[in-house]
Amino acid sequence: MSAVLKVPAKILKSQLHAIFEAWGMSADQADMTAETLTRADLLGIDSHGITLIPFYADLIASGRLTPRPEIRIARSFGATAVIDGGGGFGEAPAVRAMELAIEKAQSFGIGAVGVRNSNHYGAAGVYALQAAAKGFIGLSMTAVYAPSIVPTFGREPRMGTNPIALAAPARRNRPFLLDMATSTIAIGKLKLAFREGRTLPEGWALDREGRPQHDPEQALADRLMTPLGGSREMGGHKGYGLAAMVEVLCTMLSGATYAALRPAEASAYDVGHFQLAIHPEAFREKGEFEEDLDAFLDCLRATRPADVAQPVLAPGDPEHLACEKRSREGIPVPRSLADQVEAIARKSGAQYFFGDID
Amino acid sequence: MSAVLKVPAKILKSQLHAIFEAWGMSADQADMTAETLTRADLLGIDSHGITLIPFYADLIASGRLTPRPEIRIARSFGATAVIDGGGGFGEAPAVRAMELAIEKAQSFGIGAVGVRNSNHYGAAGVYALQAAAKGFIGLSMTAVYAPSIVPTFGREPRMGTNPIALAAPARRNRPFLLDMATSTIAIGKLKLAFREGRTLPEGWALDREGRPQHDPEQALADRLMTPLGGSREMGGHKGYGLAAMVEVLCTMLSGATYAALRPAEASAYDVGHFQLAIHPEAFREKGEFEEDLDAFLDCLRATRPADVAQPVLAPGDPEHLACEKRSREGIPVPRSLADQVEAIARKSGAQYFFGDID
Repeated sequence: MSAVLKVPAKILKSQLHAIFEAWGMSADQADMTAETLTRADLLGIDSHGITLIPFYADLIASGRLTPRPEIRIARSFGATAVIDGGGGFGEAPAVRAMELAIEKAQSFGIGAVGVRNSNHYGAAGVYALQAAAKGFIGLSMTAVYAPSIVPTFGREPRMGTNPIALAAPARRNRPFLLDMATSTIAIGKLKLAFREGRTLPEGWALDREGRPQHDPEQALADRLMTPLGGSREMGGHKGYGLAAMVEVLCTMLSGATYAALRPAEASAYDVGHFQLAIHPEAFREKGEFEEDLDAFLDCLRATRPADVAQPVLAPGDPEHLACEKRSREGIPVPRSLADQVEAIARKSGAQYFFGDID
Repeated sequence: MSAVLKVPAKILKSQLHAIFEAWGMSADQADMTAETLTRADLLGIDSHGITLIPFYADLIASGRLTPRPEIRIARSFGATAVIDGGGGFGEAPAVRAMELAIEKAQSFGIGAVGVRNSNHYGAAGVYALQAAAKGFIGLSMTAVYAPSIVPTFGREPRMGTNPIALAAPARRNRPFLLDMATSTIAIGKLKLAFREGRTLPEGWALDREGRPQHDPEQALADRLMTPLGGSREMGGHKGYGLAAMVEVLCTMLSGATYAALRPAEASAYDVGHFQLAIHPEAFREKGEFEEDLDAFLDCLRATRPADVAQPVLAPGDPEHLACEKRSREGIPVPRSLADQVEAIARKSGAQYFFGDID
């Protein structure tokens, strides 16, 4: 048995779909949720694909999540709307919200849809690309149910890793894609440093006194992350401001619950998202935006590199390269994760699909 | 004579207005431009107030800027529009664009207005606050006529310091305000390090080979800035992506000229901006957004500090504190800058207003 399975995207999606339906999700919501996670895995965003299944199983077990929610438009005004996620997973309401933002942008040039009463929604970049695939600029942000980013000068977490993703359609190139957490690094990098026995550089994480944390094991236990930039001297106050901006647009604007003030006895996490779409044809003649974006992407890649062995990449290149490779070769799933998925599938009464892959 | 004049905002604005009119600007454009720079100075954004005058005089002298432009709405569709700045300074078209975005947001819940054929527009935060003062969330971004940010893995600049500003109205608190360049640090910090004889920490600037630059004098000459985060290990690719996002929304979307591809013989810089306004009442019942934002700002400030002598600040606190102090005591103008302003005023035939202040 190999240590890593290479799972075709179609089979990976079927596995996810089967588990979600076994948890009680409706077929169409299971499809949107499975598709969103599969796309993240195809794009190489390993932290937001099938690896989420054990965490999602815990969410279901917590009783704080409704497996079969009613997703409804709670408000609609002009080019804006608010969707109530009904307390289920975030993917289905987030897909609906971006669809609606695109419809609004078709009519008004721009559309913005907030989501409240939701939960973890997977990878922000997948929604931004949902818009780009239809010829729109897509912007997606989400708040997080658990705070981990510590404000500049502080020693307590006040916001999640609050990601920002923007995608834009080109003509010759694959879409522009920025997909970033507003923390300096992802939690996954702490795990990697721990496994490899490395100490953490200053600026990645903090201890409980607000000082730099160098021990990866303790950093994983405390989850006190610096905002992008790290220290004040390196611009950490900007990352703090960006994380706070995401919180304002996702939580306060859509009417969701701010995690740091959520009562411990709250029956749901009530996470908020923000989805925005822009129609380039409202601003430019048809095709002009895409042509200029192509020239921009080409120019970025043509930047003289510091090291000839490492060319300059345009935003989205790593994700698109991963997608090509994984579409061809399958999505790498570590054996240990496949075992967890098997146990979760069997426990919930879903079929296990990876048995024949090795 | 004191080394620093304390100039009342009203007099500072009159001085700016007089110079702009002497340069040929119409009275209403001179008013908008002077007001924008004065507000930046009041907010403590010293790099974007009256200190810009020598730079603006150089722009006028270059012949690449139209002192008395026709500013017009080039396109309008639904909740969006594009304004042509007519080749003048950026402030007047940017103020008009945010006004128009607010009008659109009043009608459609959200409004976005691009500006092209423009130039330097001052401080992004001033426009974001223009929206917040009317009860709207304001987002403002601009491209820059000269590239200074070096993409991750590169050794040539490809984008300006491309700022992002977001402001949002609260009820008890002054507005939320994020106003940040997407470079790790502002050019001003290089000047300060040079004056104080300090070497630069790794991650602030690069040399022409793409390696960390520690010499502030050489850094000032080369202007090869790192994107927010600095090195790849510290998340610099995120700052690079943010700077590129700003370029897409300001330059490609509005149809302005991308600076790194602008022909040397171009007769104008053709800078682009992006102004967006959101009406909270489209998403929430009246007053709910502002109330939740108050709770958020209070919660951020109540974060336990790493050092009791340095409390945690909410985004915008430093600017609002500066504004209170400077409204009371006047705006500090170094004598050397006042001398430059005097020379520029006299040369252009404008009155000099600071002669009695000492």
